[in-house]
Amino acid sequence: MLPDVNDRLLRALRRQPVDYTPIWLMRQAGRYLPEYRKTRERAGDFLTLCKTPELACEVTLQPITRFPLDAAILFSDILTIPDAMDLGLYFVEGEGPRFQKPIRTLKDIQTLRIPDPEGDLGYVTVAVRLIRHELADRVPLIGFAGSPWTLATYMVEGGASKEFRWIKTLLYDHPQSLLQLLNILTEAVSTYLIAQISAGAQVVMLFDTWGGVLTSQDYPRFSLSWMANIVQRVKTYAPQVPIILFTKGGGAWLENIASVGCDAVGLDWTVDLQKARERVGNQVALQGNLDPAILYSSPESIQSRVADVLAGYGHGNGHVFNLGHGISPEVPPEHVAALVEAVHEQSRFYHL
Amino acid sequence: MLPDVNDRLLRALRRQPVDYTPIWLMRQAGRYLPEYRKTRERAGDFLTLCKTPELACEVTLQPITRFPLDAAILFSDILTIPDAMDLGLYFVEGEGPRFQKPIRTLKDIQTLRIPDPEGDLGYVTVAVRLIRHELADRVPLIGFAGSPWTLATYMVEGGASKEFRWIKTLLYDHPQSLLQLLNILTEAVSTYLIAQISAGAQVVMLFDTWGGVLTSQDYPRFSLSWMANIVQRVKTYAPQVPIILFTKGGGAWLENIASVGCDAVGLDWTVDLQKARERVGNQVALQGNLDPAILYSSPESIQSRVADVLAGYGHGNGHVFNLGHGISPEVPPEHVAALVEAVHEQSRFYHL
Repeated sequence: MLPDVNDRLLRALRRQPVDYTPIWLMRQAGRYLPEYRKTRERAGDFLTLCKTPELACEVTLQPITRFPLDAAILFSDILTIPDAMDLGLYFVEGEGPRFQKPIRTLKDIQTLRIPDPEGDLGYVTVAVRLIRHELADRVPLIGFAGSPWTLATYMVEGGASKEFRWIKTLLYDHPQSLLQLLNILTEAVSTYLIAQISAGAQVVMLFDTWGGVLTSQDYPRFSLSWMANIVQRVKTYAPQVPIILFTKGGGAWLENIASVGCDAVGLDWTVDLQKARERVGNQVALQGNLDPAILYSSPESIQSRVADVLAGYGHGNGHVFNLGHGISPEVPPEHVAALVEAVHEQSRFYHL
Repeated sequence: MLPDVNDRLLRALRRQPVDYTPIWLMRQAGRYLPEYRKTRERAGDFLTLCKTPELACEVTLQPITRFPLDAAILFSDILTIPDAMDLGLYFVEGEGPRFQKPIRTLKDIQTLRIPDPEGDLGYVTVAVRLIRHELADRVPLIGFAGSPWTLATYMVEGGASKEFRWIKTLLYDHPQSLLQLLNILTEAVSTYLIAQISAGAQVVMLFDTWGGVLTSQDYPRFSLSWMANIVQRVKTYAPQVPIILFTKGGGAWLENIASVGCDAVGLDWTVDLQKARERVGNQVALQGNLDPAILYSSPESIQSRVADVLAGYGHGNGHVFNLGHGISPEVPPEHVAALVEAVHEQSRFYHL
């Protein structure tokens, strides 16, 4: 008997016909799952979980085992690159990531070295190979990285930020230094994504979590152009691998994002999906964009909002269903089951 | 001798000719000023400062005394209304506002009473009268309130929120209850703004701080339509008083906001001002939208970014210069001086 190969995600990203709209969820392997919390406890801490391929593989597969999701995403963190650059990544419970040695001077930037994806970051490529083996082609595996701007933001702020004081001061007062940093990160991210693909990732996604804090004037120069460069490099190496770009808060720049050669654009929940589709035409697929807060509501409310998102995209190819942001740790897993079922059932109508 | 009356703000809001672009700053009376920190210390705590008209007047005037700003804004807080509704407002240092009795049930909503602006909120109208007297028409005074949606968010979440879990659950599972709450708040905000105008406020502004966390589908129903209702009521009472609406993160809905009868729309710093002006045409004035983080940078960088914002709006009437968000407590006051000077000097070219 042939294995049951689900290639709906790959087909949707290429804007080919599917029988129903594929769905996966940002942060689908995460704290809302009791089995994840168990594995995490066994690992001891978050970074050990990321850095132990067997455990990373285990949690990557947990949501696939529990729900009929149409893709797996590598369990990892966008900050693996700055961690491998020796900035001393650590996590403060409830407060997010921190760096012991944030970037403070031009010399800090100039002495950064590109991590070797098979050396410093070898735990990631080993995990990718292991996950592909365990998945046995049931669903495709998505690899990912943070965008250069987003990584730079964490590295310069020294962690999560509300005001973006230091990165913005660097941008406004010393743009050339920031561009040097972005150039190094672009090299590092490209190499890293190519290594993930080489190890078996079938789709890659760039998370530009902080692109939306830039002005319209600065976004192209300090975020989008570097993502465009990564798209070019990755496409040169692996033209067949779809690339998804996701700038949170980037709805205003959708046309620009869609024009850099990526295959799909992720949308946060504030974007009107129908208008977004009109704006990009047949240039790219669109991924999104249910309000993640809906998962706190009743299954009936979830079904109703799924209907709205599907109707927003409408008939035809090129839609990957997702939340507009990562899933929250407090969400009941049964609500995720209701969501996946609703998307699969309701979306058939749009693919008749 | 006649007093020196600066009516540039009023003229710009009415899209009438001015000699230079007026500027004021959201949160211009605030912690970045050493004189504010002194008065605040004398008051003991933030709420006492808000509720003592003499002190509120004192801090309102501080930035006007220090910088040649073109408007004063009443020193107060958007949460005065829920405080007067007996929700037990208090502030946790460094963590923002909290309510002792957040809204949890339909009964909580139905038992809310509209605060009397001359009774419960009398300290605000007394402060407005006092400030107008002290200002002696040097610059116009702006009154303000939070939007119904933004107030509801704080009242239901019990304070500041990152996930908006409770208000979103109310919206998705019990929209009729939320609409009842918004209806009550619309009544309260309208009455409150009319009382501020009656006491002497020459412009009023609605702060819709959390409108941008709504989907495109929900924003009109749960935020904008209620602000539109307030605009109608206030305009019926005082057709001559300009009204500014500001939805943070609302750039995608600019045309809708501009069409509800307000005089001006505030823009956050992510919006392209030139495109925004093209989108609204001559319907409204625009207020904004310098990145507040620029104030951490050098005066040269500030001047250069002021030039970009002014060029973005271009020649002609209808621009009020402001930041795209409130000023940060760590900003050096000298940088604010450089900003105000740069706007006044550079903008003359656009009004020749």
